[in-house]
Amino acid sequence: MKAEWIAVDWGTSHLRAWAMQGDRVVDRAQSDQGMSRVAKGGFQTALLSIVDRWLGDSPVDVIACGMVGARQGWVEAPYAAVPSEPVANVPVRVPGTDPRIRAFVVPGLKQTTPPDVMRGEETQIAGFLAAQPNWDGVLCLPGTHTKWVQLSAGEVVSFRTFMTGEMFELLRGQSVLRHSVGQGWDDAAFSEAVADTLSKPENLAGRLFGLRAADLLQGQDGAVARAQLSGLLIGAELAATRAYWLGQQLAVIGADQVANIYAQALQQQGAFVETADATEVTLAGLALARNLTRQTA
Amino acid sequence: MKAEWIAVDWGTSHLRAWAMQGDRVVDRAQSDQGMSRVAKGGFQTALLSIVDRWLGDSPVDVIACGMVGARQGWVEAPYAAVPSEPVANVPVRVPGTDPRIRAFVVPGLKQTTPPDVMRGEETQIAGFLAAQPNWDGVLCLPGTHTKWVQLSAGEVVSFRTFMTGEMFELLRGQSVLRHSVGQGWDDAAFSEAVADTLSKPENLAGRLFGLRAADLLQGQDGAVARAQLSGLLIGAELAATRAYWLGQQLAVIGADQVANIYAQALQQQGAFVETADATEVTLAGLALARNLTRQTA
Repeated sequence: MKAEWIAVDWGTSHLRAWAMQGDRVVDRAQSDQGMSRVAKGGFQTALLSIVDRWLGDSPVDVIACGMVGARQGWVEAPYAAVPSEPVANVPVRVPGTDPRIRAFVVPGLKQTTPPDVMRGEETQIAGFLAAQPNWDGVLCLPGTHTKWVQLSAGEVVSFRTFMTGEMFELLRGQSVLRHSVGQGWDDAAFSEAVADTLSKPENLAGRLFGLRAADLLQGQDGAVARAQLSGLLIGAELAATRAYWLGQQLAVIGADQVANIYAQALQQQGAFVETADATEVTLAGLALARNLTRQTA
Repeated sequence: MKAEWIAVDWGTSHLRAWAMQGDRVVDRAQSDQGMSRVAKGGFQTALLSIVDRWLGDSPVDVIACGMVGARQGWVEAPYAAVPSEPVANVPVRVPGTDPRIRAFVVPGLKQTTPPDVMRGEETQIAGFLAAQPNWDGVLCLPGTHTKWVQLSAGEVVSFRTFMTGEMFELLRGQSVLRHSVGQGWDDAAFSEAVADTLSKPENLAGRLFGLRAADLLQGQDGAVARAQLSGLLIGAELAATRAYWLGQQLAVIGADQVANIYAQALQQQGAFVETADATEVTLAGLALARNLTRQTA
């Protein structure tokens, strides 16, 4: 089946594509050919291998967001500086593609003080605002690198990135804690850990090794350790972002377990939290970005 | 040359051995056959491969400390519970060894609340106290897992373990920061980072990704990033251990760069810091442990 256009979310670890008719998804595909696995020069091949069946004789627009716009990516899409609309600049055309596609990459955002960058989330933010144009407040976009984003009058005013997701994976999978952190979950252990490092962020450093010791000495359950590790890290992040969420209009963008975990931690602090589906806002943002390319075509 | 006895420090990543005559080192050897690389049943072979030349017809005492006494180690040397002298119990004889050696492993220490364990540092503490029998105060033993130890009247009263060294290695080598953290060092950047997370430990979570962003946006030097990463982590550890070091008699045990870094961070806070050489106190502690085996032989 031929697509009218193709939406692409191309991050560090995954490549996801959707065959679109207007704003309707008619097919989808994904692979593990994220940025970190694709060599310079290999991007078009990686994409075509999953979208080939959606192409025809006339060129199809491909609109991509994410790390694919980095310097080492398919084409560099220079950052726009905040304060800025989330997608202020026209997506950058990839030169010299297969004639069956016209490919564009959405630029990311940068902030000078403190230094910070995003690629991909700007598209989700644009999609979120498309559905709620007058929404002012703070977005939390959890992931490998969680973003906290202050929105006002349709612009990204400031943002901060936290490596909480990556730290969790490194500690769970590569550190001495890998022997003690198991599968499963324990809500009470998570809540206690969040509350502890949120009120005393220094306890993050102080409690991590205790997850190993509690296993060695008391045979503590691996599910409890997993929830505690997550809670200690997220509590420390919430301590650092207090000004972002305390008393603010707040939405968490995400579909998977990690978004629910963040919402739970925030609700535990009395915050009122909206949620929005990550895929939905990504597709809405890519549709907006596509319109930008057509206005200037 | 034959050794009178053999001192062994057998940790997770390294195996170090010294040929001893009384308390004098006459030869030394090491290999990368730490605990994590030796399979159950492979310990004697790993050791003999580096100490073989020191053995003779009559059995030589081998006194080992470290992770080699863990359940997955050469022989399990059960933890003694604090409060306790650092080496309170007789080292555990390894059964069924090669007849040219009589091998013993020094027991570690455990603490119930909060749960914590050590293996190896108890021997260093015993060696430190052997030279300064009436020393009361707090020891800091930096490493992959840094230990803070409160000593009083010759006993370990309490201790806490921090994964600061392991976190540094994971973030430097495996996370997105690996692209931005280089070699070299910058004292001013280290001091600023220590002061920041010591006063505001929540800034650890808030500043890590900034090391990457400052490189992307401003081309920040990799040596500065390295010193900042170390400083942010150590500052957060010092925030968590304030009760251990503030106004206390204080000594840092270590020979290498990391001990100097800790001493610098503590002196910056106005603490008076003694230092002791790690190898020296390890050998003194192993000599004490050997005496325990002979008193009961």
